[in-house]
Amino acid sequence: MIDLRSDTVTKPDETMREAAGSAAVGDDVYGEDPTVNELEARAAEAVGTEAALYVPSGTMGNQIAARVHTERGQEAIADRKSHVVKYELGGFAQHADLQLRMVDAERGVPSPEQIAGEYVAEDLHRPGTGLLCLENTHNARGGLAIEPERIAAAADAAHERDVPVHLDGARLFNAATALDVPAAEITDPVDSVMFCLSKGLGAPVGSVLAGNEAFIERARRTRKLLGGGMRQAGIIAAPGLRALENVSELETDHEHARLLADGLARIDGFDVQEPETNIVLVDVTETGLETDAVLERLRERDVAATQFGPTTLRFCTNRDVSRDGIEAVLDAATAAFGTA
Amino acid sequence: MIDLRSDTVTKPDETMREAAGSAAVGDDVYGEDPTVNELEARAAEAVGTEAALYVPSGTMGNQIAARVHTERGQEAIADRKSHVVKYELGGFAQHADLQLRMVDAERGVPSPEQIAGEYVAEDLHRPGTGLLCLENTHNARGGLAIEPERIAAAADAAHERDVPVHLDGARLFNAATALDVPAAEITDPVDSVMFCLSKGLGAPVGSVLAGNEAFIERARRTRKLLGGGMRQAGIIAAPGLRALENVSELETDHEHARLLADGLARIDGFDVQEPETNIVLVDVTETGLETDAVLERLRERDVAATQFGPTTLRFCTNRDVSRDGIEAVLDAATAAFGTA
Amino acid sequence: MIDLRSDTVTKPDETMREAAGSAAVGDDVYGEDPTVNELEARAAEAVGTEAALYVPSGTMGNQIAARVHTERGQEAIADRKSHVVKYELGGFAQHADLQLRMVDAERGVPSPEQIAGEYVAEDLHRPGTGLLCLENTHNARGGLAIEPERIAAAADAAHERDVPVHLDGARLFNAATALDVPAAEITDPVDSVMFCLSKGLGAPVGSVLAGNEAFIERARRTRKLLGGGMRQAGIIAAPGLRALENVSELETDHEHARLLADGLARIDGFDVQEPETNIVLVDVTETGLETDAVLERLRERDVAATQFGPTTLRFCTNRDVSRDGIEAVLDAATAAFGTA
Amino acid sequence: MIDLRSDTVTKPDETMREAAGSAAVGDDVYGEDPTVNELEARAAEAVGTEAALYVPSGTMGNQIAARVHTERGQEAIADRKSHVVKYELGGFAQHADLQLRMVDAERGVPSPEQIAGEYVAEDLHRPGTGLLCLENTHNARGGLAIEPERIAAAADAAHERDVPVHLDGARLFNAATALDVPAAEITDPVDSVMFCLSKGLGAPVGSVLAGNEAFIERARRTRKLLGGGMRQAGIIAAPGLRALENVSELETDHEHARLLADGLARIDGFDVQEPETNIVLVDVTETGLETDAVLERLRERDVAATQFGPTTLRFCTNRDVSRDGIEAVLDAATAAFGTA
Repeated sequence: MIDLRSDTVTKPDETMREAAGSAAVGDDVYGEDPTVNELEARAAEAVGTEAALYVPSGTMGNQIAARVHTERGQEAIADRKSHVVKYELGGFAQHADLQLRMVDAERGVPSPEQIAGEYVAEDLHRPGTGLLCLENTHNARGGLAIEPERIAAAADAAHERDVPVHLDGARLFNAATALDVPAAEITDPVDSVMFCLSKGLGAPVGSVLAGNEAFIERARRTRKLLGGGMRQAGIIAAPGLRALENVSELETDHEHARLLADGLARIDGFDVQEPETNIVLVDVTETGLETDAVLERLRERDVAATQFGPTTLRFCTNRDVSRDGIEAVLDAATAAFGTA
Repeated sequence: MIDLRSDTVTKPDETMREAAGSAAVGDDVYGEDPTVNELEARAAEAVGTEAALYVPSGTMGNQIAARVHTERGQEAIADRKSHVVKYELGGFAQHADLQLRMVDAERGVPSPEQIAGEYVAEDLHRPGTGLLCLENTHNARGGLAIEPERIAAAADAAHERDVPVHLDGARLFNAATALDVPAAEITDPVDSVMFCLSKGLGAPVGSVLAGNEAFIERARRTRKLLGGGMRQAGIIAAPGLRALENVSELETDHEHARLLADGLARIDGFDVQEPETNIVLVDVTETGLETDAVLERLRERDVAATQFGPTTLRFCTNRDVSRDGIEAVLDAATAAFGTA
Repeated sequence: MIDLRSDTVTKPDETMREAAGSAAVGDDVYGEDPTVNELEARAAEAVGTEAALYVPSGTMGNQIAARVHTERGQEAIADRKSHVVKYELGGFAQHADLQLRMVDAERGVPSPEQIAGEYVAEDLHRPGTGLLCLENTHNARGGLAIEPERIAAAADAAHERDVPVHLDGARLFNAATALDVPAAEITDPVDSVMFCLSKGLGAPVGSVLAGNEAFIERARRTRKLLGGGMRQAGIIAAPGLRALENVSELETDHEHARLLADGLARIDGFDVQEPETNIVLVDVTETGLETDAVLERLRERDVAATQFGPTTLRFCTNRDVSRDGIEAVLDAATAAFGTA
Repeated sequence: MIDLRSDTVTKPDETMREAAGSAAVGDDVYGEDPTVNELEARAAEAVGTEAALYVPSGTMGNQIAARVHTERGQEAIADRKSHVVKYELGGFAQHADLQLRMVDAERGVPSPEQIAGEYVAEDLHRPGTGLLCLENTHNARGGLAIEPERIAAAADAAHERDVPVHLDGARLFNAATALDVPAAEITDPVDSVMFCLSKGLGAPVGSVLAGNEAFIERARRTRKLLGGGMRQAGIIAAPGLRALENVSELETDHEHARLLADGLARIDGFDVQEPETNIVLVDVTETGLETDAVLERLRERDVAATQFGPTTLRFCTNRDVSRDGIEAVLDAATAAFGTA
């Protein structure tokens, strides 16, 4: 099976396994795991923040951020298609009692005008705006690599109103790679950022939440509340550290995505969105088939992708699928559906 | 001061005061207040439900409904401009942990297509849709009298997906009056409805939440949780009962609104939305003045209206302002701003 | 029926009805109801605070206080038999996400030693103590009139640890009357107090939450969140104002309670707790009957009391039951059960 | 440093490291990690349930259970000294809106009489009891190995009232070992159990929540909500699987605890609670020193223990401290404080 469902499926390579097997460890709940501490320091450096916190998942990182930045009875602004809105089980309301203010934002980033329009000043009747949450790359909109200027414009509009900004950077380094800028340039205007070690970077488990020291201190306590305090977490932090070195290889996934997109565009009935990073969205309406049926035909030919909305498939290139694999996918799609 | 800020400012008339002063009472927390019981029975009849519950405010009625209809970890669909979204302090998230799915809906009622698009089936990552909340008349969109067919279409789309529907009918009888249909025809397709006795109907305090018996039984308990259990509430339920008889007089408020709208449309720089009920929205951008300044000039001439968004004023006709009052408002506006 | 189930059943007298019928009113959500404003000013004066807020129920007053005093993720200390623990539907957890630290406290007031023992300093694993909630008179322990010194000792112990103190003074004036001290002497050491107008004071509806101005400002907003914002609330605030004048008559209820207790102590199988205010608790174990059966036999003779735990009844004297009524109750009890 | 602060500090041994380095993995959010699946199957078998779920921490396991078993607006009964009460940041209120009903229970297990007394039937004023939470071994009471009969008696009392029972079995296998019964005999009467792989069993990370299939299905979704969904979790599940084989070695920790307790009992001013498992509590009041000072003196001699209440220390034997280590601890204590 050539698995393009997600980059979360990437398996740790030998260097990661060795790192896991030989990691220096301690009890991280006591702050004594040297590997976790090193990972947190390296991660903070990578995104240009004072401090960072290792968390078991990107969802936990985002949810901690929402709770730490806000007080009860506030609102959060987020793009309607963002991960925190779609795939985190309504956590902003569950964990932080936030009223969600969904917006339809171009490239998933509310414009300064939208932020001005959606901002609510706290009064007797209205919950005040307490958070702006952005996402980069933007998964559900097709792995868009959001430009630093766009992030900065939104963050500035929020900050003018004393609203903190969290960036869901699950695939932050894909964005930095595609845009050829340091990750820290993207994160510079935001107050906190979460990024995943376990997606394109290939680590088996874990994400990082980064921000200033006061934020991370509070985040550490909220991690405990959510059950994210782990013990000898160095065992998984070690491959996470190793994963940080894979940033330079993300460009390969992007090349593969472009190759894949070009090929899929020739398949009969496939309408392909031009990829910016490692995600390729394909609208299959014109095949006359349900997405399930399309996925099934691909699966019969050992190709796995993911349903992504009623008429759309997502193919997500990743370090476990080589160029040959991409070509095999294209051959399979051609065999299954023919070319236009 | 001619007060058109809201119909909530209406003061109880002599018959209501007499009703308050002479009401048969008992302890309503024990279900023993005969006046409250009569009001609840009469209210249920008026909206065609099995049962009803007297509550101290419309906000409490809406919030109880949201909590009773849903389970934790769900979503609620509501129009972005609805009262529950704008003016209830984020209560859906606070009281019921609901993730809000704001939509921009024509006339404030999501179309069946929008509901199909916004509906989320519960899965491992996604909170399922647990509530559709509608509003009639729709306050923030200008007191729109929403047609029963539109309500029914939305409710049907929700019910097909096993999603219950609550109607914020704070001004339900204004809608029924404007549309010349029984209120029960509007509420027939929904699972619960809240309407206010304290707005155009003129009661000093109170609203009613109505639904089937099982719903109202649970609502009664949730009212206690929110602190809405009152004792000899007959004192305020009695004028509320009397207010139910004022339904037939709402048409006068609507006439006044049309008269007012026609007159305001002649004022220099006033852009008036045609009223459907007792609310008149005026965009004052073309006056070249801030809304605050416009309100101030009116106030100097003893006219009170309300700011309603950055460039809009709301005038809300009500039983305490006669036709002469409306004409005085127009004279004041003319004196303050001149005619176009 | 001679109704001693509760002092909540008291019905408004003629002066209250006249007050309701003739009250000056305005829209209290806008802060414009002169009667409510007067009531709040008078109530604040009566308990010696800067400000006060009219609320529809004692439960709402207590719940608002808990939420305003605390931040999310804290603990509240309260006596196991206190009203906030037993009869408010778990509101501290529901509305304010507080972990409850129930203690068994002598006379319902945790001693300084208990407070020292239950106090939790916030750390990585532990929710910090955010509230101490006291009650006076203490209903479930038998209407105990808690001495100011005891309240002060507890409050001091809390304040030493920066923990705010709320007093559920639903029957505060009964305590003040029994102890012959000004209410303000009891409330002096606490940060907020709620008292009911609707119990022994005889008002049909309503309670007051009092505290300093900053607290009341936040409480006003939280009242809106809970749905407690009412409009021409002067209609019920007016009898509430009138009820404040009834404080001097509470001593009559207390006399009646002593008379009742003395008489009931002679009934076969009745074990009577000596009353301190208007509440008489009777353990009926020795009658050999279930409480339900005892209540039923009384009810057959037109006397109503309340079950209060598995073997206990509560008789609550109130302004609607005269001395003759008390004697009739004793006659009925004698007829039903005989004397020892 | 001889580290007896906790058994959480145990470091993975070589076999665990090898297991981590060579684990078969997949994406566990998709249910495709064979090692996690094997661990869950083996864990379920070990505690005699239909199913199990791997979670990053014991806290998460307990919190998931509380939320899945209950509905909003309920109460949970738990011992005042239980971990869920003391060390989980008030999670029952935070995550599940539960009012906590703390009891002082002999050996930490509420008796059937206590449960009968604390049980609350849901009514108009009262939150119903929704959960009984037990703990075995009971950490804060000194690592007590709770007898199956005691667990069963409490669970039966709860079940008679339709109240589900969760067992915090963080150190369940220590209890089973000490009592010489199968773990499944202890867990047989409860509805769910959490146990830790990361404490005495020596795994670096992780715990297991076990129950019937319907429970685990809902738990899996709640794990996602809390951010506990991990990807190639086989890397840490593999040493967890290996840890399950360490159950037979727990008796060694218990022997060491007895040896330690005997020795510490001879130290001047040390009052030692007889250990039942791997935890030794020492009251140091009679040393005339603060616990901090006692710990400091031990630390100067390379021995680490933990403060556990105002006058008590906890020593927790674990697989990283050999018999020689225990003797070295005793030598250090003797050198520091002398013998009585």
